[in-house]
Amino acid sequence: MQKILIISTGGTFNKVYDPVKGDLVIDETSHAVKEIASKWLCRFELMNIIGKDSLAMTNQDRLELLSVVTQTEHEKIIIIHGTDTMHLTAEYLADVEIEKKIILTGAMVPYTIDPVEATANLSSALGYMQLLSEDGVYTVMNGLFGSHEKIIKEKSKGKFIRKR
Amino acid sequence: MQKILIISTGGTFNKVYDPVKGDLVIDETSHAVKEIASKWLCRFELMNIIGKDSLAMTNQDRLELLSVVTQTEHEKIIIIHGTDTMHLTAEYLADVEIEKKIILTGAMVPYTIDPVEATANLSSALGYMQLLSEDGVYTVMNGLFGSHEKIIKEKSKGKFIRKR
Amino acid sequence: MQKILIISTGGTFNKVYDPVKGDLVIDETSHAVKEIASKWLCRFELMNIIGKDSLAMTNQDRLELLSVVTQTEHEKIIIIHGTDTMHLTAEYLADVEIEKKIILTGAMVPYTIDPVEATANLSSALGYMQLLSEDGVYTVMNGLFGSHEKIIKEKSKGKFIRKR
Amino acid sequence: MQKILIISTGGTFNKVYDPVKGDLVIDETSHAVKEIASKWLCRFELMNIIGKDSLAMTNQDRLELLSVVTQTEHEKIIIIHGTDTMHLTAEYLADVEIEKKIILTGAMVPYTIDPVEATANLSSALGYMQLLSEDGVYTVMNGLFGSHEKIIKEKSKGKFIRKR
Repeated sequence: MQKILIISTGGTFNKVYDPVKGDLVIDETSHAVKEIASKWLCRFELMNIIGKDSLAMTNQDRLELLSVVTQTEHEKIIIIHGTDTMHLTAEYLADVEIEKKIILTGAMVPYTIDPVEATANLSSALGYMQLLSEDGVYTVMNGLFGSHEKIIKEKSKGKFIRKR
Repeated sequence: MQKILIISTGGTFNKVYDPVKGDLVIDETSHAVKEIASKWLCRFELMNIIGKDSLAMTNQDRLELLSVVTQTEHEKIIIIHGTDTMHLTAEYLADVEIEKKIILTGAMVPYTIDPVEATANLSSALGYMQLLSEDGVYTVMNGLFGSHEKIIKEKSKGKFIRKR
Repeated sequence: MQKILIISTGGTFNKVYDPVKGDLVIDETSHAVKEIASKWLCRFELMNIIGKDSLAMTNQDRLELLSVVTQTEHEKIIIIHGTDTMHLTAEYLADVEIEKKIILTGAMVPYTIDPVEATANLSSALGYMQLLSEDGVYTVMNGLFGSHEKIIKEKSKGKFIRKR
Repeated sequence: MQKILIISTGGTFNKVYDPVKGDLVIDETSHAVKEIASKWLCRFELMNIIGKDSLAMTNQDRLELLSVVTQTEHEKIIIIHGTDTMHLTAEYLADVEIEKKIILTGAMVPYTIDPVEATANLSSALGYMQLLSEDGVYTVMNGLFGSHEKIIKEKSKGKFIRKR
């Protein structure tokens, strides 16, 4: 089985509460991903870049992500990303037609507030990746799996849906 | 996408603490599975049978499970099972050569004690099932995916490993 | 034993994550307090007013609080309050010299993010209140107990200290 | 304020899940107490002895506990104890008429399964201890405070009640 690379770019998935600021901030070290690996009794190959909220992500950041994605030897890559602009980053990567299998995932609720949704999104993406044979950019969120064009955020409901 | 049936048979996955007994007992209603669905913002088709600890499972129970597996219309079935005898149940089901895709999963730590491993096992099984094209009996545990003959419990380490 | 009234005014103690807004908001129903009572296997007399973040609290709000405190028959009152202006509300109440025993408490971390600090603050205030014989306004935070003038927030450290 | 000593003797409060044994075991290091201190942003003076389930506690163990209680310089002592024989240990200590203030507390649910009840019991005992002026042996459980003869376990309900 070929190794999967997890690239963590920040997002709600990685938010933690800062008692001094009294607010949620991005944990740029992705401790949440490491804790899932540890509790799941397995190991992930993890790379942390950007470390931003979804809404703060610029095309400069996307270029950095694209650069990492193309330069790594890994052909199977899971990207943890904020949910609000996940589709923009997906399109940005899809435009380049990289010969790799890329899954975007994230969370509506920070892992540190409730670990279930974040854990389920990441681990279901890992499960889906195992048998993925076609190159492309995919989205895996809330138990939905498919091309990034099909699985989109329904902002008013606070969850992802399958586009009809 | 074809619907997946989750059959919950009990096991450590479903254990809850009973303060009056002062001990862990099986929750036969699989509230854990329902809570994962609710927090993951999706729905599972769930059936509860047997409701036993892995070590208490008899061949009579396995016959009941086999009967449910063959009679349901679902062709994709995830079975939540105790880890100690997961391989025995897998062999029992594999012997019959049912034309279905069956994944066994479970947990080393009860969901109610720490939800991460149980959630990751179940949701990674759901992800793996999406693209599974060959009929057979599979095991998905601790980030490992494959035929039930390959993914086995290493009792001394308290986790599953891939058999060489 | 005389009944203790808990007045919940909002504050970090009662913050919950809103996945649609992607931010923490005040739960004006103080579900956290009810959950502590339920898990602690006891009952609290609870009143919810104001429902604000500490920094948003006005003197109009303090007047409302004072009015509730003076009008209720309870002589032992615990007020759950945001930590940043807890001392201002304490002074406001102390100025009136009410013949009651009033304890202010709260949390640096929302109960829903990690229940331990919030639970410990509230339950230690309840323990302290049992034997409190002198009327006055007290602060109970982070394992410190005393007159509201003595227990104050050290903002840079994100916790309360005893003033020397 | 005089320092309070916490003596942790084991009990349900300190049980943790052992995935290899598939059962709950006593954590003799009382990590739960240390975690409460850390999250509550305060420090406890902690001593670990005996490390047993309540039902396994012998009079030999109680003699050891009595010896520690009498020999320490501390006059304010909180004992974390299993709930089933808490009253027996309380009577054992009360018979000696030590000139100290001793509070017994514990938990119906292990801290590691749900931290709220254990945290509330311990921190409310700490709050109660602050103003305790009469020497004696007390029990603090489930929001009840008083002489060890008054606060007793109602086994069928799985909680403590005040004896009439």
